Amino acid sequence: MHFDARVQIDLPHRVRFTRDAFAPDNSTLRDVFAENPWGQRAKLLVVVDQGLVAARPTLQNQIQRYFEESSKHSPEIVGFRALPGGEQIKNDLSLLEALLGDLHRLGIDRRSTVLALGGGALLDTVGFAAAMTHRGVRLVRMPSTTLAQTDSGVGVKNGVNMFGQKNFIGTFAVPWAVVNDLSLLDTLSDRDWRCGLAEAVKVALLKDTELYHTIQRSAADLTQRDAAVGDEVWKRSAKLHLHHITAPVSAGGGGDPFESAAARPLDFGHWAAHKLEALTDYELRHGEAVALGLALDTTYAALAGLLPDPVARRVRGTLSSLGFQLSHPALNDPALLGGLDEFRQHLGGRLTITLIRDVARPIEVHEIDRVLMKHAAQQLLSVAAPVA
Amino acid sequence: MHFDARVQIDLPHRVRFTRDAFAPDNSTLRDVFAENPWGQRAKLLVVVDQGLVAARPTLQNQIQRYFEESSKHSPEIVGFRALPGGEQIKNDLSLLEALLGDLHRLGIDRRSTVLALGGGALLDTVGFAAAMTHRGVRLVRMPSTTLAQTDSGVGVKNGVNMFGQKNFIGTFAVPWAVVNDLSLLDTLSDRDWRCGLAEAVKVALLKDTELYHTIQRSAADLTQRDAAVGDEVWKRSAKLHLHHITAPVSAGGGGDPFESAAARPLDFGHWAAHKLEALTDYELRHGEAVALGLALDTTYAALAGLLPDPVARRVRGTLSSLGFQLSHPALNDPALLGGLDEFRQHLGGRLTITLIRDVARPIEVHEIDRVLMKHAAQQLLSVAAPVA
Repeated sequence: MHFDARVQIDLPHRVRFTRDAFAPDNSTLRDVFAENPWGQRAKLLVVVDQGLVAARPTLQNQIQRYFEESSKHSPEIVGFRALPGGEQIKNDLSLLEALLGDLHRLGIDRRSTVLALGGGALLDTVGFAAAMTHRGVRLVRMPSTTLAQTDSGVGVKNGVNMFGQKNFIGTFAVPWAVVNDLSLLDTLSDRDWRCGLAEAVKVALLKDTELYHTIQRSAADLTQRDAAVGDEVWKRSAKLHLHHITAPVSAGGGGDPFESAAARPLDFGHWAAHKLEALTDYELRHGEAVALGLALDTTYAALAGLLPDPVARRVRGTLSSLGFQLSHPALNDPALLGGLDEFRQHLGGRLTITLIRDVARPIEVHEIDRVLMKHAAQQLLSVAAPVA
Repeated sequence: MHFDARVQIDLPHRVRFTRDAFAPDNSTLRDVFAENPWGQRAKLLVVVDQGLVAARPTLQNQIQRYFEESSKHSPEIVGFRALPGGEQIKNDLSLLEALLGDLHRLGIDRRSTVLALGGGALLDTVGFAAAMTHRGVRLVRMPSTTLAQTDSGVGVKNGVNMFGQKNFIGTFAVPWAVVNDLSLLDTLSDRDWRCGLAEAVKVALLKDTELYHTIQRSAADLTQRDAAVGDEVWKRSAKLHLHHITAPVSAGGGGDPFESAAARPLDFGHWAAHKLEALTDYELRHGEAVALGLALDTTYAALAGLLPDPVARRVRGTLSSLGFQLSHPALNDPALLGGLDEFRQHLGGRLTITLIRDVARPIEVHEIDRVLMKHAAQQLLSVAAPVA
């Protein structure tokens, strides 16, 4: 006897861009908290990346002043924690446990909010803790890196590493809001600032010829961190990611926010990127690894006759002109191709790798010629090295 | 600048009733696995309640034979685990960790399935492990108790206890399928079998006069475990729970599968039930605690003038005639009313307690007169004790 039904969920996904979010007269964050149907001040736990606290000694005071106003819509800060960012926080499960202990001790409930301010790894960990506490307390994400503002921060995933496997545990959970404060990017190092450009190139190559041409044309300005071009690239890239996650297939989106189906076309270049990060013990930043992964997969696509060679060369040229190194000893590591198997296993089912036939013309392939992929890696090592 | 979007999820919730699910010619489970778009045999990890393994020594062989057929739609059993059931599995986080270790070692991926066979506590724990592994591997639930078949097993929640707090961590996750094998109930003790009747009375009092009258009329048959009446009550109760979870408000459902809003009207009697379980160190079974909670809240509603006294008396009479004890020393425990605060905190926001004005006429109240509630508890202690 069948009692089959359907479970339908329809949640708002609030994504806002601003500058100087904690300036007293900036209402962006206040607006987010004003959407409070319960009519009473909610508890707020603030969790900030230690690196950010070090770079901005006045940040905690600024945040405290911003929420001081005791209107019923302004939350009440009940705790302030600084945690390490980077892969460390995702690898060390005792940090996750300590955070859950904080949430318990502070009496955080399903109407309370956790405000997480930091890079992707911190947002992933804090987001996982928030998602599982009481089966989900509200999470406001403030990504502090170009990578997180354009990519992971606007997504609906969280997770930490376990048994040495990246994101072995985590959930899909829609944050209460994402507030991208572009001024947070000003204090990044050049190296960190550049990382977001790799994801911007990735999403442009998959979806947006115009953005790709903007990045190509403005490469010189971008290496100078020109704010006008930068802000434009970050916003457009975030919007494309958001659209892919939330829009139905009929509107050009992925139509699969929680990834129930087999493919995730925005993972272009990522099978190699994940593996290169692990092989270099995360000395390669995610953005740098993505740039290498994109160069590798476009080179492979050209060798396989899927992509015209001049396009592949221009992609490599664009990445180089943005300052990315397209050669790295790890490309020689015999373990690199194992990344294909790990990528397949994390998604399950058959291997699905997204490549491109041209700019904004993605294709999915289910087989990779490993000999040819090794050639592609060798080509990068021999061609790109002198350029760098 | 707003980039707000919406995240829409629409997932099938497969709930099937059958008998002797592992009989070679029973296609119910096979049908569930046949809905496999990936066209290759998927890995299957079977996790069974130790108590069930002890009660049915041939179970493991039966399951293995059932899935032996090597068609591409039949999954391949890669592991078989027996775990303790009851609150122990939810309290001991090392069991959850060991289970995650199994999932990792066996290479379970997002197309693999975990088949969990046991009572609500086991399903909650295994479900949480499955929900967080790779952000969600497929879970097939086979509830083995009347409580789980009619209530928690058809729901979309999982979770374990942490810091001594019930369900402190968990998620909302739609199982791949729920297969209710009514023959699993045959080996339950009378005490365990009865427990599901408390949730059936609860959902009938909230939603279904006819079911309530059926239970009243058939109380004698039910205490004899008459299969025809029993099966009817379990199915109807499961259907009502399922409808509440999945149907929109306009169709009489809760319209809120992941409980984003404030109230959860199917929690009638549950603030006290949770607390009574904790106060008795889980010597009271959940169903027994729910029966006490229902008696307490209907008595309170009558004392508060919300519910006609004769209806409250008949509710207590029905519960008694089903064999539930409506008096327990824990009703005297001064800590009992703390359950109201814990209940509020788990949901967050203001206190929301569901009571009834009559059968199938639920109301929500946001304040409880604690002196009156103590009177209600005293009344149960003095009136019900001699009956028992």
